Amino acid sequence: MAANPRLTPRATDYSAWYNELVARADLAQHAAGVKGCMIIKPYGYAIWEKMQRFLDDRFRETGHQNAYFPLFIPKSFLSKEAEHVEGFAKECAVVTHYRLKAAPDGSGLIVDPAARLEEELIVRPTSETIIWNTYRDWIRSYRDLPILINQWANVVRWEMRTRLFLRTTEFLWQEGHTAHATESEAQTEARTMLDVYARFAEEEMALPVIRGVKTAAERFPGAVETYCIEGLMQDGKALQVGTSHFLGQNFARAFDVKFLTAENKSEYVWATSWGVSTRLMGALIMAHSDDAGLIVPPRLAPIQVVIVPIYKNDTERAAVSSAAEQLAASLRATGVGDAAMRVKIDNDDQKSPGWKFAEWELKGVPVRMSIGPRDLASGQIEWVRRDTREKGLVPIAEAAETVRRLLDDVQRALFQRALAMREARTFCVDDYDTFRKRLDDPAGFILAHWDGTAETERKIKEETKATIRCIPLDAPPEPGRCVYTGAPSPRRVLFARAY
Amino acid sequence: MAANPRLTPRATDYSAWYNELVARADLAQHAAGVKGCMIIKPYGYAIWEKMQRFLDDRFRETGHQNAYFPLFIPKSFLSKEAEHVEGFAKECAVVTHYRLKAAPDGSGLIVDPAARLEEELIVRPTSETIIWNTYRDWIRSYRDLPILINQWANVVRWEMRTRLFLRTTEFLWQEGHTAHATESEAQTEARTMLDVYARFAEEEMALPVIRGVKTAAERFPGAVETYCIEGLMQDGKALQVGTSHFLGQNFARAFDVKFLTAENKSEYVWATSWGVSTRLMGALIMAHSDDAGLIVPPRLAPIQVVIVPIYKNDTERAAVSSAAEQLAASLRATGVGDAAMRVKIDNDDQKSPGWKFAEWELKGVPVRMSIGPRDLASGQIEWVRRDTREKGLVPIAEAAETVRRLLDDVQRALFQRALAMREARTFCVDDYDTFRKRLDDPAGFILAHWDGTAETERKIKEETKATIRCIPLDAPPEPGRCVYTGAPSPRRVLFARAY
Repeated sequence: MAANPRLTPRATDYSAWYNELVARADLAQHAAGVKGCMIIKPYGYAIWEKMQRFLDDRFRETGHQNAYFPLFIPKSFLSKEAEHVEGFAKECAVVTHYRLKAAPDGSGLIVDPAARLEEELIVRPTSETIIWNTYRDWIRSYRDLPILINQWANVVRWEMRTRLFLRTTEFLWQEGHTAHATESEAQTEARTMLDVYARFAEEEMALPVIRGVKTAAERFPGAVETYCIEGLMQDGKALQVGTSHFLGQNFARAFDVKFLTAENKSEYVWATSWGVSTRLMGALIMAHSDDAGLIVPPRLAPIQVVIVPIYKNDTERAAVSSAAEQLAASLRATGVGDAAMRVKIDNDDQKSPGWKFAEWELKGVPVRMSIGPRDLASGQIEWVRRDTREKGLVPIAEAAETVRRLLDDVQRALFQRALAMREARTFCVDDYDTFRKRLDDPAGFILAHWDGTAETERKIKEETKATIRCIPLDAPPEPGRCVYTGAPSPRRVLFARAY
Repeated sequence: MAANPRLTPRATDYSAWYNELVARADLAQHAAGVKGCMIIKPYGYAIWEKMQRFLDDRFRETGHQNAYFPLFIPKSFLSKEAEHVEGFAKECAVVTHYRLKAAPDGSGLIVDPAARLEEELIVRPTSETIIWNTYRDWIRSYRDLPILINQWANVVRWEMRTRLFLRTTEFLWQEGHTAHATESEAQTEARTMLDVYARFAEEEMALPVIRGVKTAAERFPGAVETYCIEGLMQDGKALQVGTSHFLGQNFARAFDVKFLTAENKSEYVWATSWGVSTRLMGALIMAHSDDAGLIVPPRLAPIQVVIVPIYKNDTERAAVSSAAEQLAASLRATGVGDAAMRVKIDNDDQKSPGWKFAEWELKGVPVRMSIGPRDLASGQIEWVRRDTREKGLVPIAEAAETVRRLLDDVQRALFQRALAMREARTFCVDDYDTFRKRLDDPAGFILAHWDGTAETERKIKEETKATIRCIPLDAPPEPGRCVYTGAPSPRRVLFARAY
């Protein structure tokens, strides 16, 4: 196996760095023959599974149940909610036939024209329509509410420009769809799930996020209000990490979903939906990784500690391997079940220790330990942190406790580093000249006043490619004047160029 | 809420019983507007998730990793393996366009003719083709082998006659796809995974299965050998529970996947694939349930114990609820994490205890406990087993131990009952008259001699609707004469009518 070639440095070409990292760390690749679709490789999928487990646990803790709704949506369903169809009909995969047959000329397969569907089916871009068409049958009275359902699924949105994890034609996600008797309960649900996402991003992904509400122009098609969490990537671009929508009664009206209140009145049901996707993988990669490769926060790392045995001959090998196994066992024993430390011994005889060090660095394993004859003699083992490259020696007997602490330290340090980066790159800007310049050097979040009109928002976007990421929820009112028109503004909003 | 109407008894109409049970136990329903697709409701999905967790753990224990491959398969990929295309091109969902637009007459949405795909995409009916097209890039030398990958995914096979869980247009499944350097290693893998499935069926589903190999006519399209496990349902029909295919080098040849051996020779890679699907839910329902509803084996039950508090006034209610909470806590404490006992207290004020008893019986919860003022006074609680309806009293302090034992007993008893049923309904038959009669009263498995020809197999199928479910793997050689033609036969094979 050749030596590990280095990644293109971020400073040279951030986009090339990202693409190379995704490929070289075995996270994902483009699928040949299926434009814009991705193959999520085992190592990348293992990180996604960790994300799923954390999120799924939190959905359950907040009272939700999983279910599964069909992949296909009848074309006519999409048309029922006016804004929704505008948003999704433009970019969807359409199933028109249900059979192939051999071409008469023997050249392969052709679509069988006799097998045309009466009504075309759309591969779901999101499931509000088919779910609300179902909720109509499930909901009779206030006693049937709330309905708190989540599904883990694949969805398809036909994208012309795709990037692995960040924007792909097919992606994996979860979508929560809830039904409530009152507006305030639905509003609370939308905000609760935004908080679940924010805590997940900050606690598990070590990614600080801004909670906010989208402007009308950036709202989910069919929503009354779209809440979001926004993260800042290392290149100064924003990434929408998750969204939670208060849908009002829009889908209930579109699908005629009413319920009888306790007072026996018939009313439309209130709704929310909320989702995060494999886009989280893109956010994770871009939030923490460096020129040597991926950095995975310990809580999401499929492998938290890699042990590299070092030996020159079979005698040394036997002693070192046995010590490595004991070390691994002692590390694993620091937790039970899912909480057990995730440890790998890299026993591959085909690779040198140096190659392995670079490889596990590329894959972002939080802590590396190496163990050789000298370590056995001294009773000390070397550890190296992936994030800071700090090294240390630890007596074998204390390794488990030290590594457990190291993992906690790495998790905290990654969050602090990302937070410091974001704070250093968040600028209050009050004039449009500075606004434009700030977007380039260094890029980041810009807090600026906006006059509240879609017109101004659109012009700023056209002129600078910056969009209003959100109106932050926790920002205090601060009267000012729009950075573009000078018209009065009640508070600053968050601008950035975004993924 | 109305009283619980009874299900149609199995003896009256088995098929109606099944359909009613699936609906009434809140397992699944048909999706309106999407022919043949199903909605898996939260309670049904929770059972499926338990199945997934067990299987996933066993896949990992046997060295497999999860990954994800695209939903769409280019039409041309399907054609590459001659038998595969025969088997799957006839019943597939074909994506021909990637955009809808507003109809000029304002009548809704139409397919945008300008957005026609150059090559149609097939919604995966199974993923051998796209995966082997990818493995070509992943495999260079014997050092890249084996590749042991599984994916959890949705697949689509266009079915004309559908039944919830048993045969649906879209279904959920896992599909393992492995690549090996040698034929024997691939054969071992196919058999290992068959064993994983068989153990899962018997230990978790409490469903005894026959392990066997399919005849050529019943083989997976593209396989050299298809191994299967077959279960017998209560109506005497067989159900194929899972399959594991030894694919030989068929897909490696079709997709040109070669590797360099240690001796530097270029050879085609050997393959397996194996899968189980939401069909397992159908098997689970039909293996154990009775006229009162579902019976879920404790190891797969989302709720293992339901506690129904009984009270007449608020004072009683307070005392009983508090005791129920304590009881639940003591039951849950008998295991940690995933092993914790799954207990629900049914606190619904809108329903009577009698209604709740019937409801939880319908939903198949293995053990029901009720707790009222008299129980508090006596210090004893009543338990009822779902499978046998046996009842007993247990002192509160001993409840946890007793219920833990009861759950084990129910799990064992369900397996034993299903096994006894199968044994009572498995017949050695040596003449065709008896063969035909046996299929009707009572139906079941028939072990009979077969001359090994596809012709005889086809005729028997046409005349009796019975198929060869498999050639059992553990059946000893036993020379005899074909039940249909009288030609020599080396061993009995397993016939049945099947789902």
